[in-house]
Amino acid sequence: MNVIIINGPNLNLLGKREPTIYGSETFEQYFERLKLKFSALNLTYFQSNKEGELIDKIHEVGFSIDGIVLNAGGYTHTSIALGDAIAAVKSPVVEVHISNVHAREDFRHHSYLSKNCAGIIVGFGMESYALALSHFAAKHSKL
Amino acid sequence: MNVIIINGPNLNLLGKREPTIYGSETFEQYFERLKLKFSALNLTYFQSNKEGELIDKIHEVGFSIDGIVLNAGGYTHTSIALGDAIAAVKSPVVEVHISNVHAREDFRHHSYLSKNCAGIIVGFGMESYALALSHFAAKHSKL
Amino acid sequence: MNVIIINGPNLNLLGKREPTIYGSETFEQYFERLKLKFSALNLTYFQSNKEGELIDKIHEVGFSIDGIVLNAGGYTHTSIALGDAIAAVKSPVVEVHISNVHAREDFRHHSYLSKNCAGIIVGFGMESYALALSHFAAKHSKL
Amino acid sequence: MNVIIINGPNLNLLGKREPTIYGSETFEQYFERLKLKFSALNLTYFQSNKEGELIDKIHEVGFSIDGIVLNAGGYTHTSIALGDAIAAVKSPVVEVHISNVHAREDFRHHSYLSKNCAGIIVGFGMESYALALSHFAAKHSKL
Amino acid sequence: MNVIIINGPNLNLLGKREPTIYGSETFEQYFERLKLKFSALNLTYFQSNKEGELIDKIHEVGFSIDGIVLNAGGYTHTSIALGDAIAAVKSPVVEVHISNVHAREDFRHHSYLSKNCAGIIVGFGMESYALALSHFAAKHSKL
Amino acid sequence: MNVIIINGPNLNLLGKREPTIYGSETFEQYFERLKLKFSALNLTYFQSNKEGELIDKIHEVGFSIDGIVLNAGGYTHTSIALGDAIAAVKSPVVEVHISNVHAREDFRHHSYLSKNCAGIIVGFGMESYALALSHFAAKHSKL
Amino acid sequence: MNVIIINGPNLNLLGKREPTIYGSETFEQYFERLKLKFSALNLTYFQSNKEGELIDKIHEVGFSIDGIVLNAGGYTHTSIALGDAIAAVKSPVVEVHISNVHAREDFRHHSYLSKNCAGIIVGFGMESYALALSHFAAKHSKL
Amino acid sequence: MNVIIINGPNLNLLGKREPTIYGSETFEQYFERLKLKFSALNLTYFQSNKEGELIDKIHEVGFSIDGIVLNAGGYTHTSIALGDAIAAVKSPVVEVHISNVHAREDFRHHSYLSKNCAGIIVGFGMESYALALSHFAAKHSKL
Amino acid sequence: MNVIIINGPNLNLLGKREPTIYGSETFEQYFERLKLKFSALNLTYFQSNKEGELIDKIHEVGFSIDGIVLNAGGYTHTSIALGDAIAAVKSPVVEVHISNVHAREDFRHHSYLSKNCAGIIVGFGMESYALALSHFAAKHSKL
Amino acid sequence: MNVIIINGPNLNLLGKREPTIYGSETFEQYFERLKLKFSALNLTYFQSNKEGELIDKIHEVGFSIDGIVLNAGGYTHTSIALGDAIAAVKSPVVEVHISNVHAREDFRHHSYLSKNCAGIIVGFGMESYALALSHFAAKHSKL
Amino acid sequence: MNVIIINGPNLNLLGKREPTIYGSETFEQYFERLKLKFSALNLTYFQSNKEGELIDKIHEVGFSIDGIVLNAGGYTHTSIALGDAIAAVKSPVVEVHISNVHAREDFRHHSYLSKNCAGIIVGFGMESYALALSHFAAKHSKL
Amino acid sequence: MNVIIINGPNLNLLGKREPTIYGSETFEQYFERLKLKFSALNLTYFQSNKEGELIDKIHEVGFSIDGIVLNAGGYTHTSIALGDAIAAVKSPVVEVHISNVHAREDFRHHSYLSKNCAGIIVGFGMESYALALSHFAAKHSKL
Repeated sequence: MNVIIINGPNLNLLGKREPTIYGSETFEQYFERLKLKFSALNLTYFQSNKEGELIDKIHEVGFSIDGIVLNAGGYTHTSIALGDAIAAVKSPVVEVHISNVHAREDFRHHSYLSKNCAGIIVGFGMESYALALSHFAAKHSKL
Repeated sequence: MNVIIINGPNLNLLGKREPTIYGSETFEQYFERLKLKFSALNLTYFQSNKEGELIDKIHEVGFSIDGIVLNAGGYTHTSIALGDAIAAVKSPVVEVHISNVHAREDFRHHSYLSKNCAGIIVGFGMESYALALSHFAAKHSKL
Repeated sequence: MNVIIINGPNLNLLGKREPTIYGSETFEQYFERLKLKFSALNLTYFQSNKEGELIDKIHEVGFSIDGIVLNAGGYTHTSIALGDAIAAVKSPVVEVHISNVHAREDFRHHSYLSKNCAGIIVGFGMESYALALSHFAAKHSKL
Repeated sequence: MNVIIINGPNLNLLGKREPTIYGSETFEQYFERLKLKFSALNLTYFQSNKEGELIDKIHEVGFSIDGIVLNAGGYTHTSIALGDAIAAVKSPVVEVHISNVHAREDFRHHSYLSKNCAGIIVGFGMESYALALSHFAAKHSKL
Repeated sequence: MNVIIINGPNLNLLGKREPTIYGSETFEQYFERLKLKFSALNLTYFQSNKEGELIDKIHEVGFSIDGIVLNAGGYTHTSIALGDAIAAVKSPVVEVHISNVHAREDFRHHSYLSKNCAGIIVGFGMESYALALSHFAAKHSKL
Repeated sequence: MNVIIINGPNLNLLGKREPTIYGSETFEQYFERLKLKFSALNLTYFQSNKEGELIDKIHEVGFSIDGIVLNAGGYTHTSIALGDAIAAVKSPVVEVHISNVHAREDFRHHSYLSKNCAGIIVGFGMESYALALSHFAAKHSKL
Repeated sequence: MNVIIINGPNLNLLGKREPTIYGSETFEQYFERLKLKFSALNLTYFQSNKEGELIDKIHEVGFSIDGIVLNAGGYTHTSIALGDAIAAVKSPVVEVHISNVHAREDFRHHSYLSKNCAGIIVGFGMESYALALSHFAAKHSKL
Repeated sequence: MNVIIINGPNLNLLGKREPTIYGSETFEQYFERLKLKFSALNLTYFQSNKEGELIDKIHEVGFSIDGIVLNAGGYTHTSIALGDAIAAVKSPVVEVHISNVHAREDFRHHSYLSKNCAGIIVGFGMESYALALSHFAAKHSKL
Repeated sequence: MNVIIINGPNLNLLGKREPTIYGSETFEQYFERLKLKFSALNLTYFQSNKEGELIDKIHEVGFSIDGIVLNAGGYTHTSIALGDAIAAVKSPVVEVHISNVHAREDFRHHSYLSKNCAGIIVGFGMESYALALSHFAAKHSKL
Repeated sequence: MNVIIINGPNLNLLGKREPTIYGSETFEQYFERLKLKFSALNLTYFQSNKEGELIDKIHEVGFSIDGIVLNAGGYTHTSIALGDAIAAVKSPVVEVHISNVHAREDFRHHSYLSKNCAGIIVGFGMESYALALSHFAAKHSKL
Repeated sequence: MNVIIINGPNLNLLGKREPTIYGSETFEQYFERLKLKFSALNLTYFQSNKEGELIDKIHEVGFSIDGIVLNAGGYTHTSIALGDAIAAVKSPVVEVHISNVHAREDFRHHSYLSKNCAGIIVGFGMESYALALSHFAAKHSKL
Repeated sequence: MNVIIINGPNLNLLGKREPTIYGSETFEQYFERLKLKFSALNLTYFQSNKEGELIDKIHEVGFSIDGIVLNAGGYTHTSIALGDAIAAVKSPVVEVHISNVHAREDFRHHSYLSKNCAGIIVGFGMESYALALSHFAAKHSKL
């Protein structure tokens, strides 16, 4: 079972920004640990700060891959085009957020992606990714 | 590790309503399966259609239990009092929803609970509960 | 044909409050007159000030009874959970209001119940109940 | 007791549009049946697609007739002038709607007429008219 | 100098409705008095309950007459088409209201006509018409 | 193939109002040119300033004619009844606007008609009508 | 009959600002002409840029004077306190505006004063004051 | 003079939650001190987390008791039914809040209760209750 | 303990306006009674209809006085500057209102002052001032 | 005459997604047919999922090309920058949409592009492009 | 070149309030330093807590002075009259704010002054004034 | 001291578009003049029409450079992701706008960037950049 994690804008800074607070682990390092934990899944990773590249990637993988874990960062709340891309492809998309967006500014409470997603996981910190992968792993184990 | 699942209004009808669509498994039967799957957790279950009883239950368990999985149904979107109860207790609360509330009516897009919760899981069907329990099981395995 | 009248919050005060204005007839006394008028129907009556008890009652009767006449009082405008309960059961529900809610405060102009109801009757005073029962009586006479 | 039924825009198409769905009975035919059922009332009927003609008719009959049953169709939600006409005349007006307007688009949830009406009946299909006439018949029988 | 007074919906009822309150003088009778008072003006009068007829009349007179005094009643707040008609013609239009619309319901506080009018006079009772005519009479006396 | 052009309020003033700006061609004259250009279509023309007459005309032709080109002027933004009429008939309706309504006041940005139309053409000046007819001509040539 | 004209903020600049456009007549000079025209009235004049001084003046004269003509300028749209002052005194207040505030920014379309005023006159240029005085002169001539 | 203090949801946690911050005094202990301070009043106390029980209690005491001090907690901002109960009974109700609700989230700035209350006291901490009782004690001392 | 009562716009009319309704006691006379009742406090009084003078006074006393009782009248709902002044000074401010502002127009439901105040007292009539002083007296008695 | 068709996000999926529904013709294939039909125009085609690339392309061609047909997909409703690009260039832009955006979600009813466009064509399916080209072809034939 | 700095409400407290945080330099002292730094400009200073005095001052200097630096404090967000005063005078006005108003409450995000100003400088602390003076100094050096 | 100027969408057209109005100086030419004027600063320049490239650049320089001057054009009002990037980096960002955005369309009045910026400069034309650099130069001269 092939699953891709797609991260959007500013998430490339994880582990590089304020390491005393957020830790010094980059997402790439965390990703290695996820691969170990979910060894039954074939995981790949993609990050871009560009809305259009995120759409391109979803198009590229979205008709063949078994699952997409998407943290679209700030584009979550502004990108109708990204929401349309999710609706257009066949692969199920799980929307994740590291922080509890509902405890932040009002403009982070609405997502243009959610209604087209197979599920939404919010606020568990980095564990949000692991829970999303658990979902795909559970589907896999049923196959 | 003690974890309680609390279900709010109308969720007592699961398995009883439109069995040809939703299946004939009641939540109680599903709960038995959850107990088997998460045998490392000590699970209990509570359901009420009454906002005040849900608050009472959160007060009762919320200073000692290790985790609360809460599906507050329609009260999610209208109950400031329930949100205050979550904020008042010490136990972490994971908000879950069976359906994708963001794909339904506008009035289901806002939750008075979310900002006080340790995490939110939406739209995975009955699996939403299992994912929430996975979160507590993962915490447990780290202890 | 079995039909239940369900009254919500504050409606227990009918006949007790300001009798020089509203008359001194309680709803229970009025209910006796309704039973005489609609003798072809088997009428029962339930009242509660508690949102959850109203939901419980709708669940209890809503899979077998032939009709529900519901005046949910102030919960009409605030209870998504009650609206969900109406949607969940099989029995047809007729929403009634004694006063013309559209001639009162703005917050009384919207109902979370209406879209799930078989019909809505507003503003005829106590006669609103009789008109709702007429609807069920007419269905009965066609059987 | 004289009662008039006034129908607004597009209601002249009843029975002519999509007969396999709505049936092939025109309102005029249904009206004949209403006259038989409410033989104690002296019923007349008027229909126009023109807002101003509806106002004219309400003015014409509204100081002498015993009751008006009004389905103003789309003008319900946009016509302050029609609402003012109802307020200006002496005859009681019962607002009716065939469909459940609260289960349709948002712009159909508000009525400029309701606050000036003696009562509102919504969503019972063609029976909405019969229930409105029941109200006048009941008043008549008390005379 | 030719000036027309155009009255919209429900204003035909002046003097006929609640004479003990509003007086028993019809607008036609009041108009006779206005003609006496403003003898230097050549006054005509038109009333219709139909939005389209009001537009037709404005088109008919609006390229030649010296002034229009318009009380559009309820259409004031809902008719973009009437506002467009005022903008389209050459004759100056003075908008008048008998009652103080700003002391009534919120939906009467906005006018689609005002921005295209030469002036607005509100709330002086029947005297509003006389003040509007004073404006044209003053223009006349300067010629 | 029979197609009708229906024009709403104030459009009768085309060619008569400010000829130095808008030109001195009336819509009737322009219509003659359209008939020459679209000789394969059997064109007719109707104009009214009255909302109800526009509805009447749509009812009259809307079950038999092959196409309707509708410029409802100011009623576009206020008439639910007109939108309902379009939904009720069988003939496809193309909504047209001469000016770019999106570059004008906010209240001209919303149309009650659009969602029921077969297509919308906005802002091409008088050419908007020709483009709408092109649509019907293209359908015709496929027959 | 004693009548005062009260002008609010920035109106002291009339005649001083852009004289080629607005003319070089100050309000004080215009006021002299008004006194000549309305010689039957005993006119006084007050201007202040200070909200509180306008309130003070209304208090000072508002229990004895026969009429107040008030152009509150920008305070019209923001001053609840000024609206309260008008409501508190006994003298009738006529609200005037030189420009057509409804043809200007949205925030000038609402007045906190209007609902407490005896009448409102808008958009006639400097003539707005004369029309307001005509109202008081007409009352005077009836005495 | 009989006065009851009614506390709503989550207020049962006072003294039990975060004692290092809020102190370890429960409301019951504080209530004993209030009884000593207001010995001229006959005080009773009621608390419930259930909206319906609060309504029931107001009905029970509200036709005979001399005063009600009500802190409805989160229901303050969502319960039309509770506001209706206050309007329905005869006893004067003083609304109190411990915290300054206007310095908290926007959804705590509106109260459905206030307009029906004899007075509102907000933000004095526990002293809010004492001030409310002062009001009743002052009324008592005047008897 | 020094405490000042500051009254804003229109409150100088108390006792002078409609004495048959509001009584003929001026605030100055009432203030004398307050001084007798709260003899342990050193009370002073200030009133102005001018927003800026109220700010000046708060600045003048707000770094040394022990308490401020402020009824800002209409400025309550519009003055950010006054709210800032309260935030800037050190003395605690208690906001009071004589009438129940929540039972009046919508624009009186929001206060720019409340969030910076030590407490808010609304709707007890003139007693609102006494309750505010009770608060300071209680603080004093604890010293 | 040179004309370019520019397609925005997700439109590259045409013909590839759900071919049983949308057909298996890609836009590139459809574009070949358009070139045949509009042989008098020199047509080119560009597609990108990236907002910035769409702006770049508009800048590149927008000072020399004779016409731009733009379907900006989801960016239509969110991109002020794209609207600014249209305003900045000299070439006329015709906005097109395949589906009837007014019959879809509310957030698709507003376009940041429309007010800067030479015309808007909505909802004719793939024919929307052909109608836009007809506009440019008509301009061409007049040269 | 003559330039005036005008400060609005509460800005007189600079240097006096919380000196350990804001420093103990008053604006008057800071102003002395500005005069040294911008010795090519002839600087004056004015402060008032009164909206009307700020308008008076702008009127007084605004037809002759070369530049106005205005920090209107809380009046920025509420005073249409102040915005009108800026529009009325000839001298260019630069709006400044010490704090980043966009990072504070929502009601500080809108300014009634900005659209009439020659420029806006926000959030640089006391340096905001220096930057505004730099603007005038740059203009001066070009003369 | 290293400072970068980053320009967003459509700003590459400066000097190329409408040279008779905006002048024929490109930003690159203007930038050369800025380098001469601020010779104490080490200036670089970057422009892109792509939101993601702007974010990339901010990430690239934002942990080492001494200052960023950012004119994000249309993305200012729509890009949460860009606002997040500013918040994520360490270098201070000054937001600039050439035109007075507050005097343009409503959707240009809100910025997603401002609250995370060290300061905002709006409406001084090209001088806005120079003022922003003055800020960094002043910091530099203090070092």
